[in-house]
This record gives sequence, structure tokens and C-alpha cells, in this order.
Amino acid sequence: VAREARRPDTPFWVDPADVRGNRLHLSAEESHHLLKVHRAARETAFEAVDGEGTLYRCVVEAVADRAVIGRIEGRVRDAGELTGSIHLLVGTPDPAAAEAVVTRAVPLGATAIDFVRTARSEPWQVTGVRLARVSRLARAALKQSRRTRLPAISFTPSLESALAGLPGGPQRFLADPSGSPWSESPSSGVSGCVVLAVGPPGGFTMDEMEHLRRESFTLISLGPNRLTTEDAVGALLTLCRQVFLAQSRARH
Amino acid sequence: VAREARRPDTPFWVDPADVRGNRLHLSAEESHHLLKVHRAARETAFEAVDGEGTLYRCVVEAVADRAVIGRIEGRVRDAGELTGSIHLLVGTPDPAAAEAVVTRAVPLGATAIDFVRTARSEPWQVTGVRLARVSRLARAALKQSRRTRLPAISFTPSLESALAGLPGGPQRFLADPSGSPWSESPSSGVSGCVVLAVGPPGGFTMDEMEHLRRESFTLISLGPNRLTTEDAVGALLTLCRQVFLAQSRARH
Repeated sequence: VAREARRPDTPFWVDPADVRGNRLHLSAEESHHLLKVHRAARETAFEAVDGEGTLYRCVVEAVADRAVIGRIEGRVRDAGELTGSIHLLVGTPDPAAAEAVVTRAVPLGATAIDFVRTARSEPWQVTGVRLARVSRLARAALKQSRRTRLPAISFTPSLESALAGLPGGPQRFLADPSGSPWSESPSSGVSGCVVLAVGPPGGFTMDEMEHLRRESFTLISLGPNRLTTEDAVGALLTLCRQVFLAQSRARH
Repeated sequence: VAREARRPDTPFWVDPADVRGNRLHLSAEESHHLLKVHRAARETAFEAVDGEGTLYRCVVEAVADRAVIGRIEGRVRDAGELTGSIHLLVGTPDPAAAEAVVTRAVPLGATAIDFVRTARSEPWQVTGVRLARVSRLARAALKQSRRTRLPAISFTPSLESALAGLPGGPQRFLADPSGSPWSESPSSGVSGCVVLAVGPPGGFTMDEMEHLRRESFTLISLGPNRLTTEDAVGALLTLCRQVFLAQSRARH
């Protein structure tokens, strides 16, 4: 039983607008999955996440027009979430790598992912189709990883505007081979909101690096060899995440 | 120029047997890539790695029968390698996830990857075709990440034999939600050879966990939400890697 509690099934997605009082309505797609793939029937237990920080523990109350109506029997606020927020600033790579960044960053707790067009970014059009794809991947990763808050994903046309839009005064770290290891950084002071920056393939230019340094980014070395953009994102998130974990444990 | 030195091109693969004195011979495939994709000619500079710890700085000396003969102008021992070694023990997931583990683990510095058949492992046959695929991926990741030592990849039929084959007395860590954050673990004592264990999807069973605990594995929590096997491997490697980085910096 302890085993089950620790590694339960993947929750379903519910739109916040479809939660009313103690009932929630799953979409046609999620209902199909629950009814056909999981062969759910009345009173089958399931979980749902709304992307806004709530995990719902439910049972199937009724099926109307092939859509599941769930009775909410419990709510867990901020299930699977870290105690601090992590804003990612990523030099836009090619579309496939951008998708890999999203898939990598969501399970590791990013709260915002801003893809920034830099001098060495691939110049691709952020079409509606591509945005829809990225957002579908983020949602799938959220469910799979049992987080509850869907990160905001944005595409910003310049480093200047990305930096101007950053939350005020947080700790800022930048992955760069010339930096120091994380353990020597002022990470013990990390709290609330942290900004992590990773360059596009080929890296930030000298000018961009200078700009980031002026904006108080601390340079962090991730090791003696080359990492892809998505691997660097994963590594930096892991290090930051561990600080939040240790802090939250110290408080409890 | 400093920029170039930090983010150079991807090296080519050279079989150690094809290095003789100050000359090396690239395979037909690597030669084709260098000559056709990179349009190399005589005296074009390139780099090669042998998977045994050496990066060769070369120039094209001649092309004989469409194969490149390189003149070695410099050697860098252990380029891109960490100061310690990391032995990974991974509960075998399905073949696609096993490939994802290899692709994730190589750039982060794993020196050995042992896939272990556990109670919850997917029961698939390790055929020659699949082994060849895994080994191709490892080599590609080695080159792409500019490491020089190819990790040993093995498939072990039981946890008992995997544990029996471990290097003697190293530090041992196991990803598990019930563990402590890495920062509270005895990681300051990490050195030489470290063993990191990650369960298959669904995790190790109670019996397997008990067995691992008896074998002196320290439990490490990677966070409040669920990670895939490959994400857990990436996170644990990142944490261990940072300890080696900080130590190596402290020594220099």
C-alpha cells in the first residue's frame, strides 16, 4: 500500500473552468482515455490536475454523452510543486530542441519557460501549430510527473525585452563553462524566485554575456564537457531544485 | 577566438587500433562525414576521440581510397572527463527508455551503465541489434558532448549479480522519494568511484529496496513529484558530478 501511495497512476487533465463545487467534467479526450484505456466505470477512482495548483481525488459519478463527471472527494493544493519558483530563460534552439527543453524542464519544476531569440538562435516562426504542440507536451509532462502548476511558456523576440520582463531582484544564474561550480555559488541564499539562463546551441555571444553579467547573473559551470541546451537546462534545474528541497525539509 | 576555443565542433571517432604513432585513420563513415559534410581538404584541422580517454588534434594529411589519414599534432588526455568515476545501476526500463538513459547519462559523465533486470523491469530480449543501437547512441553522445572515455554498457540478469559485480567500497546512492535531499547526504566524502542506482518505471520492489539498503545505499530524494527513469538518472548524475567539479576546482 505504501508502494501504491508513492507511485500512483498518472492523473487526468481538467480545465479549471470545468470544476464546479464538488464536481468536475473531463474533456472528451480525457474521458475517452479514462473509460476506454483504463476501463473505468461508475465509482472508479481517478485523479485530475487543473494546471493551477490543485490535484483532485475523484470517483466517476456519471458518464453523460461519453464525458466523465467526477465527484471530488479530496483536493491537494500545490501537489508535486517546489517551495520556490524557477523562471527559465533559454536562448531559442531549433523547434525539436525547444520541445526537448519543455519536456525536460516541466518534471524538474520550472514555473516559467521563456524562449528568447538571441544572435545565435535558429530563426524559426513560432506558428500556432508549434505553440499548440509545445503546450500539449507541457501538459503531458505535467501529468506524467504529477506536478499541478502548468509553467507559463513564452517566446520573446529579444534578450532586452526578456530581461526587462524578469521578476524583480531574484537570484540569477547562467550556465557557462567559465563559471564556478554551483556549490561555490551563493545558492544558500536562494529563495522565492530564481532565474536560470541557458544559451542557445553555440551559446550566447560576447555582447549577450556582457549584458547578462550587468544584469547580475552569476556564471555556473556545469562541467568539463559540452552539454546540449536541454541537458544544461536539466542540470541547472536539478541543482536549483535541490536547494528548495533542502530548505523545505529544514522548515518541516 | 576565446569563444571558438570554448565551443568547438564535434570531434570524430577513431578506433584506438587505428592510431599508430603520429597518424590516425578514420573509418569510411567518419571519413565521408569529414570530407563531404565538412568539405575537408588536405591540411583541414579536425579532432578525434578514441573512447579510451584521448582527444587528438589533427590535420588531414592525405585521403587514400576515400579514407582520411590524419596527422596528430596534439593529444589531450581525459579531455572532458570528470575526476571521479560514476557507476550507474539502472532497473531496466523498456528499450526506448534504456536508449534515453544512455543518451542522458553519457554527456553527464557516467563511466559505466549497468541495466539490471529487476522484478518490475520490462522483460525484453537484449538482441545484437539492440546492443548495436545502444552502443551507437553512446558513441554519438560521447562525441557530441566532447567526452573521451566511452562508458561500459552492460545488461545484468539480476540485482544480486549486479551488486556482486560492483567496485568495492565506493559511495552508493539510490534515488527514492523517501530519501533525504542530496545536500544532507554524506556527499562531501564522495571521491574516486561512486555508484548511483535508479529503479525501473514503477520502482524497485520492497525486497529489492531492502537488499539495496543492506548493500549500503543511501536514499536520495529527488523532489516532491514523479520523475521518469531517465530524468532521475540525469538528476542524480548532475548532483554527483557537481561534487567532483567542486573537488577538482579545490585541488587546482
